[in-house]
Amino acid sequence: MKHVIFGESHGSAIGVTLEGVPAGLELDGAHIARELARRATGKNALSTARREADAVEFLSGVFEGRTTGTPLTAVIRNSDQHSADYEAIRYTPRPSHGDYAGYIQSGGYLDYRGGGHFSGRLTAPLVVAGAVAKQILAQRGVAVCAHISSIYGIHDAPLEDPAQLQGVAEKAFPVLDDAAGERMQQAILAAKEEDDSVGGAIECVVTDLPAGLGAPDFGCNAEGIFSQYLFSVPAVKTVDFGAGVAFAMMRGSEANDPFVVRDGKIVTKTNYAGGVNGGITNGMPLVFEVTLRPTPSITLPQESVDLRTGEETEIEISGRHDPCIVHRAVPVIEAAAALASCALLGI
Amino acid sequence: MKHVIFGESHGSAIGVTLEGVPAGLELDGAHIARELARRATGKNALSTARREADAVEFLSGVFEGRTTGTPLTAVIRNSDQHSADYEAIRYTPRPSHGDYAGYIQSGGYLDYRGGGHFSGRLTAPLVVAGAVAKQILAQRGVAVCAHISSIYGIHDAPLEDPAQLQGVAEKAFPVLDDAAGERMQQAILAAKEEDDSVGGAIECVVTDLPAGLGAPDFGCNAEGIFSQYLFSVPAVKTVDFGAGVAFAMMRGSEANDPFVVRDGKIVTKTNYAGGVNGGITNGMPLVFEVTLRPTPSITLPQESVDLRTGEETEIEISGRHDPCIVHRAVPVIEAAAALASCALLGI
Amino acid sequence: MKHVIFGESHGSAIGVTLEGVPAGLELDGAHIARELARRATGKNALSTARREADAVEFLSGVFEGRTTGTPLTAVIRNSDQHSADYEAIRYTPRPSHGDYAGYIQSGGYLDYRGGGHFSGRLTAPLVVAGAVAKQILAQRGVAVCAHISSIYGIHDAPLEDPAQLQGVAEKAFPVLDDAAGERMQQAILAAKEEDDSVGGAIECVVTDLPAGLGAPDFGCNAEGIFSQYLFSVPAVKTVDFGAGVAFAMMRGSEANDPFVVRDGKIVTKTNYAGGVNGGITNGMPLVFEVTLRPTPSITLPQESVDLRTGEETEIEISGRHDPCIVHRAVPVIEAAAALASCALLGI
Amino acid sequence: MKHVIFGESHGSAIGVTLEGVPAGLELDGAHIARELARRATGKNALSTARREADAVEFLSGVFEGRTTGTPLTAVIRNSDQHSADYEAIRYTPRPSHGDYAGYIQSGGYLDYRGGGHFSGRLTAPLVVAGAVAKQILAQRGVAVCAHISSIYGIHDAPLEDPAQLQGVAEKAFPVLDDAAGERMQQAILAAKEEDDSVGGAIECVVTDLPAGLGAPDFGCNAEGIFSQYLFSVPAVKTVDFGAGVAFAMMRGSEANDPFVVRDGKIVTKTNYAGGVNGGITNGMPLVFEVTLRPTPSITLPQESVDLRTGEETEIEISGRHDPCIVHRAVPVIEAAAALASCALLGI
Repeated sequence: MKHVIFGESHGSAIGVTLEGVPAGLELDGAHIARELARRATGKNALSTARREADAVEFLSGVFEGRTTGTPLTAVIRNSDQHSADYEAIRYTPRPSHGDYAGYIQSGGYLDYRGGGHFSGRLTAPLVVAGAVAKQILAQRGVAVCAHISSIYGIHDAPLEDPAQLQGVAEKAFPVLDDAAGERMQQAILAAKEEDDSVGGAIECVVTDLPAGLGAPDFGCNAEGIFSQYLFSVPAVKTVDFGAGVAFAMMRGSEANDPFVVRDGKIVTKTNYAGGVNGGITNGMPLVFEVTLRPTPSITLPQESVDLRTGEETEIEISGRHDPCIVHRAVPVIEAAAALASCALLGI
Repeated sequence: MKHVIFGESHGSAIGVTLEGVPAGLELDGAHIARELARRATGKNALSTARREADAVEFLSGVFEGRTTGTPLTAVIRNSDQHSADYEAIRYTPRPSHGDYAGYIQSGGYLDYRGGGHFSGRLTAPLVVAGAVAKQILAQRGVAVCAHISSIYGIHDAPLEDPAQLQGVAEKAFPVLDDAAGERMQQAILAAKEEDDSVGGAIECVVTDLPAGLGAPDFGCNAEGIFSQYLFSVPAVKTVDFGAGVAFAMMRGSEANDPFVVRDGKIVTKTNYAGGVNGGITNGMPLVFEVTLRPTPSITLPQESVDLRTGEETEIEISGRHDPCIVHRAVPVIEAAAALASCALLGI
Repeated sequence: MKHVIFGESHGSAIGVTLEGVPAGLELDGAHIARELARRATGKNALSTARREADAVEFLSGVFEGRTTGTPLTAVIRNSDQHSADYEAIRYTPRPSHGDYAGYIQSGGYLDYRGGGHFSGRLTAPLVVAGAVAKQILAQRGVAVCAHISSIYGIHDAPLEDPAQLQGVAEKAFPVLDDAAGERMQQAILAAKEEDDSVGGAIECVVTDLPAGLGAPDFGCNAEGIFSQYLFSVPAVKTVDFGAGVAFAMMRGSEANDPFVVRDGKIVTKTNYAGGVNGGITNGMPLVFEVTLRPTPSITLPQESVDLRTGEETEIEISGRHDPCIVHRAVPVIEAAAALASCALLGI
Repeated sequence: MKHVIFGESHGSAIGVTLEGVPAGLELDGAHIARELARRATGKNALSTARREADAVEFLSGVFEGRTTGTPLTAVIRNSDQHSADYEAIRYTPRPSHGDYAGYIQSGGYLDYRGGGHFSGRLTAPLVVAGAVAKQILAQRGVAVCAHISSIYGIHDAPLEDPAQLQGVAEKAFPVLDDAAGERMQQAILAAKEEDDSVGGAIECVVTDLPAGLGAPDFGCNAEGIFSQYLFSVPAVKTVDFGAGVAFAMMRGSEANDPFVVRDGKIVTKTNYAGGVNGGITNGMPLVFEVTLRPTPSITLPQESVDLRTGEETEIEISGRHDPCIVHRAVPVIEAAAALASCALLGI
């Protein structure tokens, strides 16, 4: 299943074209809407007031409620745009946004309004594609669940068993430990008060992927495949599997996962490897964590450069922005993981 | 430039087939040999005594010392193999190795000897491919340099300027701070004494990549492309760009890299983003770090399962193994980064 | 530039998603409309009376009239559908249509109405993509022109010089020799009278492609790349380069194209090779011919099978169908060739 | 299964790297040798006297006689080279060879000796890859068989039933009608006498491919996939499916293949479509024909240009050359078709 996400934040529409969707899948529109609602904005004080009416129209690839196996294009119309807000950034790139890099890459022809094609809004079609992927995976008993693992240094309870993730998706603030979640939300609001933003991390688990998927080789490697999907989510700056950066502090005797037999099945006693050995799934839950940088859109004045004159200048970003996007990114990371899981399964 | 790495540790040869090498490159064989020597084993007490005669033969794609633009296959013959050492692991997978996952994936038909296609030995052809890539990059002024950033929790001096990396490649133990390096080596030897191993991390910088390479999109994203190359290196479990996991503890005002003008050029004052914004290079050094898990091959007895009977058993790995592969992996990570840089440059 | 064509004949819309369009191209909407008009139906007695309102909406990838370099999705809404006409074919595949093969491939979940995703209507978005490609090529001086080379055994005048093709695109019936064209049209009308259809061939020339594009290798081969684009046009059953099938009757001394110098440029005296040697362009016009099978939709009664009962039955296709699609396919073949040319140029 | 063919005619070796070979296949070396023998030269007066010792060494991907699923590299060493014969062509391209196009493409860095990477010798590793593919297909009951359909205008008996092809592969001159074959051989010898060469055509059938493989879409289309493999065979200039160019002279009522039931199976009464409708296999034999141009290497004096001076000159090709390569190309076309069939099957 290949996907192409298209659209610009203030263009006429955003969407996704999916190739290779298996035929005969009964598309669950309510599920897609629920997934979109999970990433929707305007729900509470933590997010921007911008209201996004994310109604999905399937232009192709669906007939009588089922996928036909032909390319599926889903479109979400844009609305509620304040394009004028962005005139100021046309030639004054916002620090740590894609503005400058995109300007150079496109020779200045990018659509700068609202971040254009770089906008976090483009994660909505990714969630649509991910919802389709989840529905395919569900038929094979594979599930993808995530939680906020930390925000601004405040950590959620450690995930010891994937079963803990049940019900987390339904929470408005998807954490295991609501008290920790409360502290995270305080940190977000405190940043907002100061016209600032905060970063965080998301941990995600794919359960019941069969053993034997992937290969050690470039292009076929399970971790390589996942990482390619994950890094295409805006703001993701790290992808860590299993014990992650802690491996650098461990000995082999601590990090190795012994093989044992449980209920007649070969499993590992621990899962420091995060379900992947030698680039191939080993049948344990595939566990990874991603770090999301703080939203670069802060309203504090910042240093920048006028791209026309090449002279230094100052920028004050107006418009409506999220002081933190980590909680809204949870379904997005799941979507990327669901697409990666399909790729691993050869779908 | 596409590459396929082939071979098994105890097969007749290992090698790499490279497609899309630009024609006319004067191949520097001495440079390739130096790169291979950097990852070679048997140099000191830190590595296995196994001696690898890594003589490279170019079967194709080179004529009168220059590349012809046609597929280039480079081969390294295997020798000095103690295949009998591995009979014990045929049906008893080593914890956290690819043995079990590979057994399932191949239906039991993998070459188990010496780790087969999963062996760290397969990084030798990767280094050859990387050396070719480095020579291509050098013509464009792009350089790739790395250092050990930590081993078993012992950190090298922080890299503040890519210029610090000059000369590090020539060191037997590639660190910035030799005193820290000394402590790392003690930790490795201590682990070796106890039949154990240790993990670590490598930081790598690609300098002078032009701004404007990549895209936010899946498959074109600079970070996604790099990560795919990096995760295909055995033992790599994390790929972090710029400030990496620290982003989760930062505010936007701390994490943002202000644009300024220096010597008539637009640069960023800091480089927390690691040279990539919105999936596109911004002209700053591309900086990333990878974590390498401790070598799973430890000689301590470990729990495993007999794949024939499905019963639990114990395994004691014999053979010669590295108590740490981080220092040997430095040129390997550089090779992966060099190939990724070529991909980004459309080579 | 990658493209995905989506949509079904009687779905809500058809369209194309284009990835890798160079940024900064001033999209010429009038040119796109002209190209669509060339393949439009309902113009004369030769084509179906079905009227297609092929208004193109660009959902993304265009800003202020220029391409942004981000994925471009173009959509054409469907209308004027007589879906009920097709109920009869749901379980009774039309001979030599994709109905049966598509039914098996999709497990019966295909959208059968009006040929669904197999419909010739899907060539409209291909023409849109091709028009974008032609605009890119025009900036490099590369042009793509075609003519009907034969219909039902009636041949157009032989093309001796690509310059003869000037103005042919503007003709309602694009041939070099209008008298031959007149005879072809008689043949089409005669077939129509008898509820039958006819096949034909199209010859196409790409001029001013530079020498040195392509490679002998699989996946890079100029002829292989062109053929992949051309066979994705419905009804195309042959792709022949240069002298084509006549090569089987020639001697080397007749077929070889001698190198000579003309106006200080190395050219070949003849161009039997059709501009490609060893899978690489040689700087001469790239010339190929495709054969299009007769439209399988004929209203004569035909033998078929009921897919529900597995029993033989008869089918009489109703609905509006073209007795010949060759003249309408001319811009479609040009579109495929334009996309292939971009691929060869690395665009 | 992806393949990369590497090597130059007068380099140290030629070979192929195959990725994605299913694990557990018992490689039949004798079959591979037989296939290579079918394309071997020096067997009779029809071919060059150059003796090629095509001993295949598998460097990787095979263990205990079976494939391991890891990349498989097969190498054939070169020998018996008369490189000096080719000095004359270094800067004087042979008409209709890849010399000139390759010179431009590589900036002059190609290995010109013996045609280098363009040499027909490179079809030997293709035959090796094809033999592996045939062995995979055989496990699924799929067979690939071809015959010479014409040489220099002399036609073999028409193929009415794929069963006629049995035993043809074993013939020294693979035709259905040995009398026609005799006349073809006379034509070849007559051309040889006059220092000339002749072209011809090969018809190939893939039997028992299941219905439902492929798609109408670019990149997935059965005919598009086959053609890409076929055009990567040197000298192939046309790829025609089913009735081929005759479709241009047919009416729909003649060209359509009615569906009928035979032995409880849905089949078509005729097979003008060559087993493909709408880009998808329909379960009938997949039938195609390719035209091979006359060998451009003829010893008659020909016009050419000196690439150093840009002046016209004359070339007389020395060395040993085949007056016809069609009979030797039969197993090569089968190999390409076998690889294409695997691709269609998702292998």
